Amino acid sequence: MFMELKYAIGVDLGATKTLVIACDTKGQILVEKQEKTPTSEGKEIVIKNTLKMIENVRDSSVLKERLFLGIGIGYAGLINYDTGIVRSSIMLPDWFEVPLQEKIEKHFNTDARIDNDANAAAYGEWWIGAGRGAKTMICLTIGTGIGGGLIINNQLYRGPDGTAAEFGNMTIDYDGPLCWCGNRGCLNPLASGTAISQRTVERIQQGKQSRILELVNNNLDEITPSVVAKAAVEGDELAGQIIAETAMFLGAGIANLINALNPDAVVLSGGVAEIGELLINPIRQEVLKRAFAIPARRAKILKAELGNKAGAVGAAGILISSLT
Amino acid sequence: MFMELKYAIGVDLGATKTLVIACDTKGQILVEKQEKTPTSEGKEIVIKNTLKMIENVRDSSVLKERLFLGIGIGYAGLINYDTGIVRSSIMLPDWFEVPLQEKIEKHFNTDARIDNDANAAAYGEWWIGAGRGAKTMICLTIGTGIGGGLIINNQLYRGPDGTAAEFGNMTIDYDGPLCWCGNRGCLNPLASGTAISQRTVERIQQGKQSRILELVNNNLDEITPSVVAKAAVEGDELAGQIIAETAMFLGAGIANLINALNPDAVVLSGGVAEIGELLINPIRQEVLKRAFAIPARRAKILKAELGNKAGAVGAAGILISSLT
Repeated sequence: MFMELKYAIGVDLGATKTLVIACDTKGQILVEKQEKTPTSEGKEIVIKNTLKMIENVRDSSVLKERLFLGIGIGYAGLINYDTGIVRSSIMLPDWFEVPLQEKIEKHFNTDARIDNDANAAAYGEWWIGAGRGAKTMICLTIGTGIGGGLIINNQLYRGPDGTAAEFGNMTIDYDGPLCWCGNRGCLNPLASGTAISQRTVERIQQGKQSRILELVNNNLDEITPSVVAKAAVEGDELAGQIIAETAMFLGAGIANLINALNPDAVVLSGGVAEIGELLINPIRQEVLKRAFAIPARRAKILKAELGNKAGAVGAAGILISSLT
Repeated sequence: MFMELKYAIGVDLGATKTLVIACDTKGQILVEKQEKTPTSEGKEIVIKNTLKMIENVRDSSVLKERLFLGIGIGYAGLINYDTGIVRSSIMLPDWFEVPLQEKIEKHFNTDARIDNDANAAAYGEWWIGAGRGAKTMICLTIGTGIGGGLIINNQLYRGPDGTAAEFGNMTIDYDGPLCWCGNRGCLNPLASGTAISQRTVERIQQGKQSRILELVNNNLDEITPSVVAKAAVEGDELAGQIIAETAMFLGAGIANLINALNPDAVVLSGGVAEIGELLINPIRQEVLKRAFAIPARRAKILKAELGNKAGAVGAAGILISSLT
């Protein structure tokens, strides 16, 4: 039987950057192109720019001999996957009820799928990243805020309105710090990148000595999770404490999810997860302490493997899996 | 086409009582029999008694003209549904790796299925109770402790080890009161029946005036959630406060689950849920405050409808659905 070479295009359309990749049916990247998203120029320009980037990737000579399967898009907003409509977005404020899938299908005369960017990233990690082989997988993306994605029984679980897996707004500390959602004690104000930076600044302002001050030349605005991690590696006490607290909060939240769903893998992605074992190891300890023994031992807690390509590759994977 | 009349037997085998029912394929109960479980006499006697009760129900004259489909059992312990083995139980301590399904299949020469009692109760409520029609449903059983069951995409979600849906050990108050699992701030020590009674006793011991004291003739050991609910209905301030706090804790936990899974229904069963609207209405308010708007509006929060028959009926339903 003649095995035709195929490819799909995956797009990660975020407020700051747009990444377009082409990959084969095993998720191997063949072409990639990244640009700043012209967010401030409005919706129409963003769409036009995305279409142009897709054309550009599609026309790469390396794809000439391959059959084009279609386009998957991960978008930073609320998506109705079934209708292919962008319902709204906090990041790109003039997007309301935009039939993005249809626009793309018409323009390229091919199949397209559109999904939330966190779903696309989770799918990518499950398909060819840290979560491959897991039947049920939880993905926590820990960046400025905490987002998530969920694979249940080898299927992306979107929920009926496409708003499932909102782990950043899980209450784990009833009277804890205020979250931007209006509640107290969500994971977001305790364990996001924003929370790590803020807590560090507060402790320094309270007079706590730390090497972090040198690392940012006394400019508190430059404190980021990676600066805190660097100081922790160098043995700074405050930094070590901040990382340890963050790991304990994340461990409590992950233990809740493990007790509820018994996943095979928990994949941590996003900038904060880049801290790596320094953060992930104490998370594992906290989970073993907090979750039930059987599911806690089952769930592998792993750093994501695809970096900032998870969303684009996952979007291509969602398109490919939808065709079979 | 000749529609043969059929029936299945469902068993709810708990540490205190054993309920055996026969129902038709729509879940309509045809026969029921309940006895105290002879737990203290050991495993063999409990099994023997269960077999005798099943025989007894099966031989009811009302079932004579019907085809016997098999037996479903809900058991208060850790079950491997796929192998039909009871792995262990806190309630019935001499049960380890008991091949209960096989024993029953051999004895009755019919199909049997065995599942955790909380799963069976959740299935019952989804099949013919408060959760019917829901594609995804969360069941919280709030009694002495808090247990749960989970229907995802019209399927009972057990998790790979049969230990999913452990909602009672969800951390919602990071430095909160100690739970019997060893952690702090789980739902159990905040919102279970035990927690309601304990918190009430503590406040009274701290000198808080309450009508509850009269209701229990000054015997603090007799304070139960239903006594607290009774006093609350009568306008007692402490009782109202305890119920309100409990609803807020439950609301926070349920909001976490709604943000994660976007269920169509959340069904509350068990003794504490019997308090009814006095408890459930403030839970709804707290959920609307804490969960995201779209999934919070979708999720109906409902009192269970099948009472103490949910487990037995659900077990029969699990057997019936496994045959098709």
